[in-house]
Amino acid sequence: MNFASDNTGPVHPKIMAALAEANEGYAMPYGADDHTAAAVADIRATFEAPDAAVFLVSLGTAANSLILATLADPWSAVFCHPQAHIQEDECNAPEFFSGGAKLILVDGPDAKMTPDALDAAIRNEETRGVHGPQRGPVSLTQATEKGTVYTVAEIKALCDVAHAHGLAVHMDGARFANAVATLGCTAAEMTWKAGVDAVTFGGTKNGLMAVEAAIFFDPKPAWEFELRRKRGAHLFSKHRFLAAQMQGYLAGDLWLDMAAAANARTAQLARGLKQIDGVNLDFEPAANIIFAHWSRARHAKALAAGASYYVMRGDPMVGDPDEMLPARLVTDWSASEASVDQFLDILRGA
Amino acid sequence: MNFASDNTGPVHPKIMAALAEANEGYAMPYGADDHTAAAVADIRATFEAPDAAVFLVSLGTAANSLILATLADPWSAVFCHPQAHIQEDECNAPEFFSGGAKLILVDGPDAKMTPDALDAAIRNEETRGVHGPQRGPVSLTQATEKGTVYTVAEIKALCDVAHAHGLAVHMDGARFANAVATLGCTAAEMTWKAGVDAVTFGGTKNGLMAVEAAIFFDPKPAWEFELRRKRGAHLFSKHRFLAAQMQGYLAGDLWLDMAAAANARTAQLARGLKQIDGVNLDFEPAANIIFAHWSRARHAKALAAGASYYVMRGDPMVGDPDEMLPARLVTDWSASEASVDQFLDILRGA
Amino acid sequence: MNFASDNTGPVHPKIMAALAEANEGYAMPYGADDHTAAAVADIRATFEAPDAAVFLVSLGTAANSLILATLADPWSAVFCHPQAHIQEDECNAPEFFSGGAKLILVDGPDAKMTPDALDAAIRNEETRGVHGPQRGPVSLTQATEKGTVYTVAEIKALCDVAHAHGLAVHMDGARFANAVATLGCTAAEMTWKAGVDAVTFGGTKNGLMAVEAAIFFDPKPAWEFELRRKRGAHLFSKHRFLAAQMQGYLAGDLWLDMAAAANARTAQLARGLKQIDGVNLDFEPAANIIFAHWSRARHAKALAAGASYYVMRGDPMVGDPDEMLPARLVTDWSASEASVDQFLDILRGA
Amino acid sequence: MNFASDNTGPVHPKIMAALAEANEGYAMPYGADDHTAAAVADIRATFEAPDAAVFLVSLGTAANSLILATLADPWSAVFCHPQAHIQEDECNAPEFFSGGAKLILVDGPDAKMTPDALDAAIRNEETRGVHGPQRGPVSLTQATEKGTVYTVAEIKALCDVAHAHGLAVHMDGARFANAVATLGCTAAEMTWKAGVDAVTFGGTKNGLMAVEAAIFFDPKPAWEFELRRKRGAHLFSKHRFLAAQMQGYLAGDLWLDMAAAANARTAQLARGLKQIDGVNLDFEPAANIIFAHWSRARHAKALAAGASYYVMRGDPMVGDPDEMLPARLVTDWSASEASVDQFLDILRGA
Repeated sequence: MNFASDNTGPVHPKIMAALAEANEGYAMPYGADDHTAAAVADIRATFEAPDAAVFLVSLGTAANSLILATLADPWSAVFCHPQAHIQEDECNAPEFFSGGAKLILVDGPDAKMTPDALDAAIRNEETRGVHGPQRGPVSLTQATEKGTVYTVAEIKALCDVAHAHGLAVHMDGARFANAVATLGCTAAEMTWKAGVDAVTFGGTKNGLMAVEAAIFFDPKPAWEFELRRKRGAHLFSKHRFLAAQMQGYLAGDLWLDMAAAANARTAQLARGLKQIDGVNLDFEPAANIIFAHWSRARHAKALAAGASYYVMRGDPMVGDPDEMLPARLVTDWSASEASVDQFLDILRGA
Repeated sequence: MNFASDNTGPVHPKIMAALAEANEGYAMPYGADDHTAAAVADIRATFEAPDAAVFLVSLGTAANSLILATLADPWSAVFCHPQAHIQEDECNAPEFFSGGAKLILVDGPDAKMTPDALDAAIRNEETRGVHGPQRGPVSLTQATEKGTVYTVAEIKALCDVAHAHGLAVHMDGARFANAVATLGCTAAEMTWKAGVDAVTFGGTKNGLMAVEAAIFFDPKPAWEFELRRKRGAHLFSKHRFLAAQMQGYLAGDLWLDMAAAANARTAQLARGLKQIDGVNLDFEPAANIIFAHWSRARHAKALAAGASYYVMRGDPMVGDPDEMLPARLVTDWSASEASVDQFLDILRGA
Repeated sequence: MNFASDNTGPVHPKIMAALAEANEGYAMPYGADDHTAAAVADIRATFEAPDAAVFLVSLGTAANSLILATLADPWSAVFCHPQAHIQEDECNAPEFFSGGAKLILVDGPDAKMTPDALDAAIRNEETRGVHGPQRGPVSLTQATEKGTVYTVAEIKALCDVAHAHGLAVHMDGARFANAVATLGCTAAEMTWKAGVDAVTFGGTKNGLMAVEAAIFFDPKPAWEFELRRKRGAHLFSKHRFLAAQMQGYLAGDLWLDMAAAANARTAQLARGLKQIDGVNLDFEPAANIIFAHWSRARHAKALAAGASYYVMRGDPMVGDPDEMLPARLVTDWSASEASVDQFLDILRGA
Repeated sequence: MNFASDNTGPVHPKIMAALAEANEGYAMPYGADDHTAAAVADIRATFEAPDAAVFLVSLGTAANSLILATLADPWSAVFCHPQAHIQEDECNAPEFFSGGAKLILVDGPDAKMTPDALDAAIRNEETRGVHGPQRGPVSLTQATEKGTVYTVAEIKALCDVAHAHGLAVHMDGARFANAVATLGCTAAEMTWKAGVDAVTFGGTKNGLMAVEAAIFFDPKPAWEFELRRKRGAHLFSKHRFLAAQMQGYLAGDLWLDMAAAANARTAQLARGLKQIDGVNLDFEPAANIIFAHWSRARHAKALAAGASYYVMRGDPMVGDPDEMLPARLVTDWSASEASVDQFLDILRGA
């Protein structure tokens, strides 16, 4: 019953095996090894993007910040949703790596920007000449931090707005696989075919140890990105171990299998939760995250029974037992059907 | 009929005289001169703050950014109104000088933050541990960019909120004098007596050539500020010429006389505008700025007659003559009663 | 015959086993897991420093830059040798993370700063008031980039100079274990007992996959470091996998065994090279790196035979066969006695 | 007898008159005024560079840092002499504005880089791929901080080296006029005709209140510079007052007259000093600065008699009266022949 995060579960055994296999003999450092070449080729194939510039880093915040710093100037505005990870959960890393770009918040329901709000926000900049920030890249989160998913059409609509203003689009795909699994589309359809220019292709939240790919479909900024990655202390020396994880991830569509499993457990959870009186879902879950409310008494019971998840506000143990407190539940590839059932049983009984 | 800005008018003759007087003989550079010592003493006296750390720079954006960088960490949130100058009109200078702090926007009517909104915004940070930005200083603009003015009680309420969370308060006083003139209070009452910790004490928009003071009522960060000023290339060598302007500004309350004159012309303008059918004021003007709407036809007439002010959106010459277009009008110390009457006559006739 | 770097060899099997063992069940992210607590305790025990603040990151450049940024101000001078990794091989990462600190180079033979040169360099700063950079931390590299090693007495002498000026000392210990193995001292003796204030305790170059520890013997800057680590995108989510490596590293003194093995192979190499006519060593090797010169013809022969190492200047295949070209050879824990003998045979025969 | 600096003397009366004249009526802010257009035209004419991008700022450190930040990337090396103002006297401003570029020091006698040393320093970078900083602009100081002057041929030789590597050249001309007066060449000959790409054209040290021009002979980076200037809080609102100073400076070659006067006083000083036993000049003065040594007793006498100059090391009042202590003397446009004679008399008599 561990629904705390998709970074609390184990690494998939196939990934561990890939690491062990990569640990044979010598390999040149800093990406000049065969595993890296193969992983880059695998990513290009997966994205149907033979010319893409592809880089591996170990953390999603690194990929996001380095991509945005490459696409933005220090005097840029970066457009994103108020609930984007880059706004809320990266401790000003985007500002740091970009040298001081400003995040301009573009609202919309279900943690998704709307094209109209984006267009208005863009139009509101560059109205004050040299005095205001200059328009910069748009960053969208797929799946969102609230567990919702942009449709391909919605992505395309946002990209169209950005491109109409000459702006690039970044997709923070920390949960890229979960979104693809939900939409049933291809990686290409969800990205460059819809207009996305650069992607953080996440792996860590989906069964890897610590790997994310930064992908630029137009490879022009490749060298700048390499320098930024090194300067940001994100260039691994024993690079084959990042690459091996990525190879294992893409081989036989493991990445999609893991995401499908994670999503299925969230769907199972959501179905069950909806049938419990006094449990309210905040969003319709579309990937592997649920935000919901139930009473403090129920929280106390579930936690006491060993369930692990985040209560987003208030002390679940102290206070009015009937007060509704918000919960976040995340399922990863390793969550079992039985653990979900067990959890639902406890909530039902509480 | 020049109402474009309070930085388009001339420098007051007394300031020019002070500059000429300061230009006698030799003076040690970088603030080690008698004029600087005297100007600092004058500011301390004006603010009834004998221990304040006081620094002169030439631009308001410099004072704002250097103060905020001193009060904030690179991982801080800085709380301000969405229409604050530091958010809209400094091309990411606060982010640059602070090394990447994030501006968190706190809304409220009339371009003024409300204590409740401020409290909620502060409480919303430091809820995500090391992942989110850390709470940092609050910055309020007095008078606001929309020409409204916080009352002393309103300032105190905001400072109380900030201090309850252990946060410092900065006042962007680019139009400090106009606000004091409006409120009829003292500089001390509008700042440290209400809880303000640091002030940008503006002069440039109120008859000086280019001088602003950065004031810290607790002088502890003085040396850090000095290093930041030098590193930001804002330490004047021929410092006596900044100081002489400030001396002239405070001597005989010239600063208040100029502000009162500027405010009076805006009041005269506002009275007149309210009596014209088809002219709508956006805010009740409390200092020396007016935001209003009138028809394109009226704009065209006024501009053709030689009036100078900003039409904030749209082409005043091309389009539907009845469309209401927004105007900003600012009066400085030098605006004449006659020029205001002349302008009102033209609008009335249009 | 792979002597290209100590990051080209495999991860030690015990480390792979530790990773596999850590991959059981669920663990809270971001360092709130049992492995991390245990690894921190192990490091504190190894350094006999029960109060030390200890953090894990994946790259040495990250540890160096984050430590220096914590110890320095943006307007600081950081004192280091011209051949320090932070000066030559981090693509301005120290400048980036510190917000613009300036590296002041302190020369000395064998890639080691001398106390006199350090003292002179420190005295040369803060002579120009606010105009020059302010004195900041001293950073020494142990073992050095040239494969030499500071004695404990030499470290103490440098720390004494730094402390006499009130400055902190950082040790870049990317090859910390190799130096300890050479000196036969304890980790404590080589660091805080000699006056070192903060250490980059390297693991990646000595048999780990990618882990370095940042250690502050005075834990005061712990929270600042945590924020800097997160903001620099260096806080691992699946933190147990960094920690497990470090646990395996320290268990049963594996770290020292691996370093001793690496050093022994370099000693074997050096002994052999000295006996070959026409081979000149640039430094007396004291750890696991050799810089030497031999003829282009010899380089061509060795490389053609499959040896792998860096020729630091010139094309080993094209040009005057008698020209002496510089080589760098590094041995890691996995280098075999036989491969060294084989290499020496080839050189001898060439 | 004030030889402390060329920023201690008065502003030239013609400049004060130009300021007064510019203070008539209204003028659009931020450089959109007639004075600015005229000043830019005057600078282009002076430099015979009709297409140059020209910007005014108030401080030399601002012009230097903003130009270098425009020409360099954050991961660049900037090549300069160890005694350059940007290295010694700007409190890390170049690192700050550039986002962390590294200054690589290129030595040479008389505070001047030699072409060979520059070539070697450039060749020493970009030898370590992504790991080291990348080659960036060269910055030379004319006149140097030691009062020496590069000949046009020397400038050309340095520019040839830089251009052979594809690098741009910046000239820090805080004392540009003094150098032109010494060389008897034109502004164009000393800059773009010799290969210089961007210039800090100083005025503050030569009779202005506070104005420097940043000039790019290739105007391509103009808009980037404008954004950097605004973001650095260096865009003056009442811009006509910067422009008026520059207009007055160039009108009737006032700038050259003032520089010639300053240089003449230094030449007079040098002639006299050479004839005094026990006075040693450190450099052959070529502009308006002298570095020399004489005994503590002599310093004490001169200072007691009211002379003002910097003793660069040691307490002139306390210690062995025969110890030789270093002095720096600077003459500005306003220094009188009589004051120099008076000073020489005192030294002679001491």
